[in-house]
Amino acid sequence: MHRLFVDGGWDRRPGEVVVGGEEGAHAVQVKRLRAGEVVEVLDGCGCVGHGQVVEVSRGGRDSRVRVRVGRVEVVERFGPVVHVCSAVPKGDRAGQLIDQLSQVGAATWSALTTDHGIAEGGGHKLERLTRIAREGSKQCGRAWGLTIGGAMTVAEALVAPAGVRVLVGEAGGGPAGGVVLGAGDEVRILIGPEGGWSARERELMGGVEMVRAGPHVMRIETAAVACVVALLNAGRV
Amino acid sequence: MHRLFVDGGWDRRPGEVVVGGEEGAHAVQVKRLRAGEVVEVLDGCGCVGHGQVVEVSRGGRDSRVRVRVGRVEVVERFGPVVHVCSAVPKGDRAGQLIDQLSQVGAATWSALTTDHGIAEGGGHKLERLTRIAREGSKQCGRAWGLTIGGAMTVAEALVAPAGVRVLVGEAGGGPAGGVVLGAGDEVRILIGPEGGWSARERELMGGVEMVRAGPHVMRIETAAVACVVALLNAGRV
Repeated sequence: MHRLFVDGGWDRRPGEVVVGGEEGAHAVQVKRLRAGEVVEVLDGCGCVGHGQVVEVSRGGRDSRVRVRVGRVEVVERFGPVVHVCSAVPKGDRAGQLIDQLSQVGAATWSALTTDHGIAEGGGHKLERLTRIAREGSKQCGRAWGLTIGGAMTVAEALVAPAGVRVLVGEAGGGPAGGVVLGAGDEVRILIGPEGGWSARERELMGGVEMVRAGPHVMRIETAAVACVVALLNAGRV
Repeated sequence: MHRLFVDGGWDRRPGEVVVGGEEGAHAVQVKRLRAGEVVEVLDGCGCVGHGQVVEVSRGGRDSRVRVRVGRVEVVERFGPVVHVCSAVPKGDRAGQLIDQLSQVGAATWSALTTDHGIAEGGGHKLERLTRIAREGSKQCGRAWGLTIGGAMTVAEALVAPAGVRVLVGEAGGGPAGGVVLGAGDEVRILIGPEGGWSARERELMGGVEMVRAGPHVMRIETAAVACVVALLNAGRV
């Protein structure tokens, strides 16, 4: 099943949807979609349009796919909404992190600038991670996409918008989890670098709830995935 | 902190431990351990020896490290014992699977031969995965190692030893988990290939409990990690 992502969404009603831009070019040039193929159109915000390709216009970067959507499905979010703010792993592991977070069902990811962190999430890198998040979401059929946000410092990340509970991931020392959430809860989980939190950061975190990622020390991407799974499960309690 | 793995363990009493073989050679030639360094000696079965290197003898493959263990710590397992039987992902992803399973705390991993699976876990590959499991366990300080077992077919994997509950991972359709375990429980979780279970395999599985890995379709390694985290958490209920 091929899935197409519509930037900015559409009117969520049956009818025609035109997919252009990078996504249209990818569908035409790389995926080689043809008229007649059954596809799903996603807006990343819970809406899935089931349809069929009506027309493909080849034009290099301006390639477009015209889809006739027959049925529109609105999918509710599962369990709590989990926002991940993590240190950025080095090299390929950053892509693996985003790919796995999109599979397990995190809502957003933002780079966390930490005292002991190594890699930085620059503009170029963020673009690549956004592409990986989109591809990952399409591949696993997520109606709700994984959104990549802007980088934050620890001080910034500790101040969440109203209604969002802030939690800090803690390496080792016990089984994962330890937090009980309601299904409608919204949380932001901070995951530190492999060098751990600095004394300054620990001071900033005074009083904030800690979530253990598992019994052992983990690398950033494993800790992030483990915390999201534990928190999504905590929502079932 | 450098950690040394002692094949076959030792007598678990303070005193001298000699680490040879591949592990000794690695410690001397790659890690360049020196006399006086503080190290931990692991047997992979819950015993951690805290000690200091007394002598290093360089001899290529016959290099050895002599450690004086001052204090012996016996670590209990956390929560349920989770055995993973999974289809083998292609290429580097098999290594990533083992590495992440050792971080999250799976007890064992065995290759599952499935009708829709692609890669096979041949002898050479298993040796490499055993090395990755050992390195992963050392890196995250696991007192209990991740053991790599022999390959099994689905029919074989469904027949577990007495006292071991068999569960099957199911892709998509809801939040992870759905199983409640006691802390002392021992389970074997079967994770299928990305092509899913065949009709024949589904028939074999009739009546076996299903565990959802999460709301979305996942790749093998992500599903395995998500299931282990969900099951270790289920043990806290």
